[in-house]
This record gives sequence, C-alpha cells and structure tokens, in this order.
Amino acid sequence: MEEKEISQAVIGRLPRYFRYLGELRDEGVERISSQELSELMKVTASQIRQDFNNFGGFGQQGYGYNVEYLYREIGKILGLDHTHNFVIIGAGNLGRALGNYINFERRGFIFRGMFDMNPELIGEEVRGVKVRPMEELEQFVRENDIDIAVLTIPKTSAVELVDKLIQNGIRAIWNFAHVDLNVPEGIQVENVHLSDSLMKLSYNITRYLKESGQDTN
Amino acid sequence: MEEKEISQAVIGRLPRYFRYLGELRDEGVERISSQELSELMKVTASQIRQDFNNFGGFGQQGYGYNVEYLYREIGKILGLDHTHNFVIIGAGNLGRALGNYINFERRGFIFRGMFDMNPELIGEEVRGVKVRPMEELEQFVRENDIDIAVLTIPKTSAVELVDKLIQNGIRAIWNFAHVDLNVPEGIQVENVHLSDSLMKLSYNITRYLKESGQDTN
Repeated sequence: MEEKEISQAVIGRLPRYFRYLGELRDEGVERISSQELSELMKVTASQIRQDFNNFGGFGQQGYGYNVEYLYREIGKILGLDHTHNFVIIGAGNLGRALGNYINFERRGFIFRGMFDMNPELIGEEVRGVKVRPMEELEQFVRENDIDIAVLTIPKTSAVELVDKLIQNGIRAIWNFAHVDLNVPEGIQVENVHLSDSLMKLSYNITRYLKESGQDTN
Repeated sequence: MEEKEISQAVIGRLPRYFRYLGELRDEGVERISSQELSELMKVTASQIRQDFNNFGGFGQQGYGYNVEYLYREIGKILGLDHTHNFVIIGAGNLGRALGNYINFERRGFIFRGMFDMNPELIGEEVRGVKVRPMEELEQFVRENDIDIAVLTIPKTSAVELVDKLIQNGIRAIWNFAHVDLNVPEGIQVENVHLSDSLMKLSYNITRYLKESGQDTN
C-alpha cells in the first residue's frame, strides 16, 4: 500500500482505534459509521475520516466501515502481522510487570529474555523466562533475533547500554529510563517517562483549582 | 500570574524542560540561552521561546535564562510546590514499581496507601506502606486527603471504581488500566496505555523497514 508521510500524532492515535475496533469486534459488531465511532471514542467524525484518509480511507461505503476489515488493516499498518522478539533489561518490579503482560504476546511481541546486573536475581523466572546476567546480553541479542530492548534501568546505565544494543542488531528501544536517548537514524525509540506523565497530571490539578477558585495561594 | 489558555501539547513539554533544567542546576549551570537549551534538548530555539511565552517568557535578558529561577518557575506552574497524596490501587508488579519510585516523593507526590482485592497480599508492605483490602478504600481516601488515585488494575474493575473514588474526593486519576475512563469535568485523568505505546513502536519499526527496503512483504 502506498502511504503518505504520516505525522506521529496520527500514528499515536492508531493504537486507540485498534483497541476500540478490537472491542467492537469481540462484541460481534460488524459495521460502524464514523459518526458512531466518533461518539464512542469522543473524537470528531471528521478527525476519524482525516486520520483514515492517510491510509486510503478503508473504503467506507453506504453504512460505515467493516469492523473486522478495519481492525485487521490497522493492525497491519501497526506492524502487528509481524512478530517482534524483545528482551527486558532490568528485572525489578517494572521489568517484571512488563514481562507478565500476556497481552503483548497476543499482539506479536514475544518475550524472549530478561537481564539484570544484580546476581541475586539471576536464575529467577518471569513467565517462564530466566533472568540472565548482563554479560550474556550482547550475545543473546545477536543469536536470538531480538529487535526490541525494553529498558527499565537507571538512566546512566541506559545511556551506556544503548550503543552495545544497537551494535548487536536491536532496531527499537522501549525506554522507561528517565533520560532521552541519542540513537542513530533508523533506530526507533518510544519513551515512557512516568514522572513526566505524573507532572502533567499535577499541572492539570493545579490549573483546575486555580480556575475554579479553589486555590488560596 | 495571568496565564493564557495553554494547549495540552505545551503542557506535555513542560516536564521535559523541568527535567533538563533540574539537571543543569545540579551541574551548577547558572544561565543558559534558548539556543543552548535548544541544542541540548533537540527542539528549536523558537519552539522554546514560544512555549515560554505562554507563561510570560521568564525574563530572558542579555545572556539567556537564569537556570535556578526557570527551574523553580516551571516547577510552580506544574504544581510541584504543592504536595499531592496518592494511593495505588492494585498491588501487583506495576503497582509496586510505582510505589517504590522515590523520585515521585521529591516532586511532592506522597505515597499514602495501597489497595488490592487479593487477600494474600493484604498486610504486605511497599516502601513502608501497607497493602489494605479494597473495602477500606473509600474511607481511607476520605480521611487521608487523597487527591490522586493510581489505577494498576484490570479495565473492568477500573471503570467500576472510578465513581466511588470521585465521590470520596479524588481529584485526579493516573490510569494504567487499558481503558479510557469517563469522568465528570474537573476530574483530571492522565492515561499511560502501555500497549498503545508498544504498538506505536511497532509501527515505526515496520515503517522504517519498508522505507529502507528491508521488508520483503
């Protein structure tokens, strides 16, 4: 399929469409109009049509979109028809939480390995995957066709690690370390900066209190 | 300070400014120009000036901004000069990871309580905070001036819980449940949809492989 240059804002909305369409499909809904989808998702119908037009529009005809078809097509655009092998670096609570998400596997993300520098954790298992020492990381990544590294380690270690990961074939980094990573072109990074998200929440609380006159500062 | 209506995009960038300024301050840097900040953060200097102009510009004069002042002012805008009490609902790995982040406390987010429906977890401690049964949640929220609820529970439970939380005085929800929540005006929600973030990463990997001709599909 020919695709135009698509903004990261549109791409950021695709997983949400995918999620709603998956739920509709599970509920047995066969067709849906952009108007109905708009009400369900609380975005305008024109936004939906614009977003979908980036990908050829998905052939809305007569009464709306075919849910199954749309779900599958968006899944393909998201690359969910491929599998991706990932390792988690950092076997703390966050690493374990991510290793335990079976939903990831359903989307084609296969949890292959887990690494930690704490010798006490080596040999422990998370959903059948053994925690290995950091010394084995590079070889493991090379030999097991790992394309995504999930970083749940402190920021200094993350920065040092990234070059080694890339040299050994990693294509993408899902970064939970509280730092922005410098990577060469072609390496994808998706940041989940939890503190940033919490501060945004704090801003919105504070702002609302001021606007509604509940703040006495 | 008088503030204009500020877009969520600008607000979303504030925590990142705050993070970089905090690091500069820790390194002993006293002044920085928008050009230097631009190179460091890899955003344009004009973007920085535009963003800061939403808040009166922070008085850049002569050679750049005063780092300490800028850091403190952005912190105030983010509401970090207030403290916020939070509870975590769901004592699984993700809930524990969040409970253990001492950085949150430094920003004024105080971890007060943790709740789970699994009786086996009741009484366990995460950073000195006891896991309590769900039956105690509403009273606890009311009596301990809790303003943020962190939800790390399955989506059906999250939807059911939200009304109760709001009735008992919660102002904001930091939502890790894989569902969009319906809340009345004035209640702030910040979503961290981990699967969505992973799918965005998958899109960018797939897209890059296609563009660079490495995809054989």
